[in-house]
Amino acid sequence: MAHVLILGGDGYLGWPTAMYFSNRGYEVTVVDNYLRRNACTEIDVGMLYPIPSLVERAKIWHEKTGNEIKVAIGDLTDAEFTRGFFEGRVKYDWAINYDFTGVPETVVHYAEMPSAPYSMMDYKKSNFTITNNLLVSSNLLFAVRDLAPDTHIIKLGTMGEYGTPNIDIEEGWLEVEHNGRKQKFLYPRAAGSLYHTTKVMDTDLYWFGVRMWNLRITDLMQGPVYGIETEESKIDPRLRPIFNYDEVFGTIVNRFITQAINGYPLTVYGKGGQTRGYLNIKDTLQCVHMSEKSPAEKGELRIFNQVMETFSVNELADITKRVGDKLGYNVEIKNIENPRKEAEEHYYNPTYQGLINIGVEPHYLTDEVMEEMFKVVAEYKDNIRNDVIFRGVKW
Amino acid sequence: MAHVLILGGDGYLGWPTAMYFSNRGYEVTVVDNYLRRNACTEIDVGMLYPIPSLVERAKIWHEKTGNEIKVAIGDLTDAEFTRGFFEGRVKYDWAINYDFTGVPETVVHYAEMPSAPYSMMDYKKSNFTITNNLLVSSNLLFAVRDLAPDTHIIKLGTMGEYGTPNIDIEEGWLEVEHNGRKQKFLYPRAAGSLYHTTKVMDTDLYWFGVRMWNLRITDLMQGPVYGIETEESKIDPRLRPIFNYDEVFGTIVNRFITQAINGYPLTVYGKGGQTRGYLNIKDTLQCVHMSEKSPAEKGELRIFNQVMETFSVNELADITKRVGDKLGYNVEIKNIENPRKEAEEHYYNPTYQGLINIGVEPHYLTDEVMEEMFKVVAEYKDNIRNDVIFRGVKW
Repeated sequence: MAHVLILGGDGYLGWPTAMYFSNRGYEVTVVDNYLRRNACTEIDVGMLYPIPSLVERAKIWHEKTGNEIKVAIGDLTDAEFTRGFFEGRVKYDWAINYDFTGVPETVVHYAEMPSAPYSMMDYKKSNFTITNNLLVSSNLLFAVRDLAPDTHIIKLGTMGEYGTPNIDIEEGWLEVEHNGRKQKFLYPRAAGSLYHTTKVMDTDLYWFGVRMWNLRITDLMQGPVYGIETEESKIDPRLRPIFNYDEVFGTIVNRFITQAINGYPLTVYGKGGQTRGYLNIKDTLQCVHMSEKSPAEKGELRIFNQVMETFSVNELADITKRVGDKLGYNVEIKNIENPRKEAEEHYYNPTYQGLINIGVEPHYLTDEVMEEMFKVVAEYKDNIRNDVIFRGVKW
Repeated sequence: MAHVLILGGDGYLGWPTAMYFSNRGYEVTVVDNYLRRNACTEIDVGMLYPIPSLVERAKIWHEKTGNEIKVAIGDLTDAEFTRGFFEGRVKYDWAINYDFTGVPETVVHYAEMPSAPYSMMDYKKSNFTITNNLLVSSNLLFAVRDLAPDTHIIKLGTMGEYGTPNIDIEEGWLEVEHNGRKQKFLYPRAAGSLYHTTKVMDTDLYWFGVRMWNLRITDLMQGPVYGIETEESKIDPRLRPIFNYDEVFGTIVNRFITQAINGYPLTVYGKGGQTRGYLNIKDTLQCVHMSEKSPAEKGELRIFNQVMETFSVNELADITKRVGDKLGYNVEIKNIENPRKEAEEHYYNPTYQGLINIGVEPHYLTDEVMEEMFKVVAEYKDNIRNDVIFRGVKW
């Protein structure tokens, strides 16, 4: 069976992705250096519930399903460590069979510092974000070029790369007519944070790599993800993903639900007209899986806009309040001064058809879906720390 | 008088720029870590003539003109070192007056690994290019944001950021009409080497910084530079710039002249239709000076295309042969297999009016100009090593 190597396998999306592929018969290897956990400790933002180590999670998964997810702990900014996964020089931190699994057919690259506010806290964290994200991307690119040119890289980009242009956002590319001549360009990008700017740079780098070396890469421009439970995490609650509810590492829907449960007014920045595309964590897994099943061609940088529907912040606050109120929480909404530099009212019309075309079946953020999330989060109500929710990181 | 801080003050352009400003009454500080010299030593490409250390050059300059150029040797990827130039924590390696000159009104940022072939030699050099170039740019950006928000950054970009699109290349920006709506974008970029891609990333970063923090930045999209003598270097030949004639660090006109003098056939890659914009080193100095005199506005990323005329490689080879033959060299031209992945015949129509509009008076590559260059290079004929000219760095 095909071998999938997941970089950043400990993160909010990494671990659920590992289980998803493992559950479908793939050979799976996960790599992580606990960047997310360490950063949360560093800036003192608690997670909703404690998360077993990656090795523990792999052991629980094996115990419950009989499947093996091999674990390697290490820093992928080290080129030699990264190349080891393509040269057979891997020392697994946990496995059933410690022999080298072989060169992966697919690499899912999540191994980046993923927070916009973290990247904006000070110049040291900005530099860390730049070097971490660019070096991991570069090490993977060169390892694949040199050692496994047929391997398909599935890279997590972000819709935030596009920013909020005044024209429709296409899926990655834009045909421009100018002075009577035509050129198809990578869709011009203008991101709203330093973190998002490193993802623009990643795309620059991977587009360069594809043009030069005929590689096959899928770049998934993902919107903010919400959700907690996946098919696989239902097997044992200890398999649930990392769940942050703070402004720095928590995505907005997850955070709003947590705030609603703990009586913390929903913090809407400025006018609340900021509109983005969103998706359920279950759809992230589908999108990555479908991308793996229909890989990019050699010499193709394939770009998908990975969102299923769009909402403004005000709309998300309204849904959260409606569902929360129904469940007996008395949910307040509070517009606060926007600590970020961003348009609070703007045109936003992204295309997102490509992933549907390769077989993804979207989930939507219905009241029922949100109600289920409320119920899971409420199990951990006693763990919620109101003091970590709002950090006021300024842009 | 205004204070100009020159990052990368030891390089081919940095030192001539330092003398140019000093000669016009500016306070000048130069910073460098000898990256260029060390890289030349590392890969064994000799320079045309030995270059005194940066401190020695500043001493000669002072001796000959009475002017002070303060020198600091250090690595600008170290954020604290960079910030020292804005906080008064500088330890000069040479000065007449060792007191802190003060916060610069203008920073000229040349401090990058400048070679496309070097960046393509292997993954270690690629990573070095990424981290060196991005961290210096980031450290400068954050230092100016935090400590000197009115300081004007003049950043050296490259025409290579644009690549060779099939439409006209505008000066930095492109107005796009799409589905009946309009948006002005940063002109979409698709560079031809890893080095050039880091310059694309620099522009991404600086465009982000300008949008977020209202900074003033001029990004100079420069073409390949030729030339050796400037008004200031004529004062003493020891003040001439670093001059490389190899494929890795030597720019094409400088290299062709050296090859012609030493009987090494001019190496035209493939069909030789690769067309680029070029300029004389004297015009680089003018461009930077005029940009300094009419700075970008606060909140403006001002982009100029810094070229004065365009040539194909075949045209450059023809001029070199014509002038060389006239001077009694028997110049041969040899088309060799292209080690790079690039279009050998393509549309190329860049706009370059902005710098003329602020007062630059172009020099052109006439036979007379080239003849003068031949004469200076010929002084050092005995130093030329044919074995370092062609390295065959593959893309």
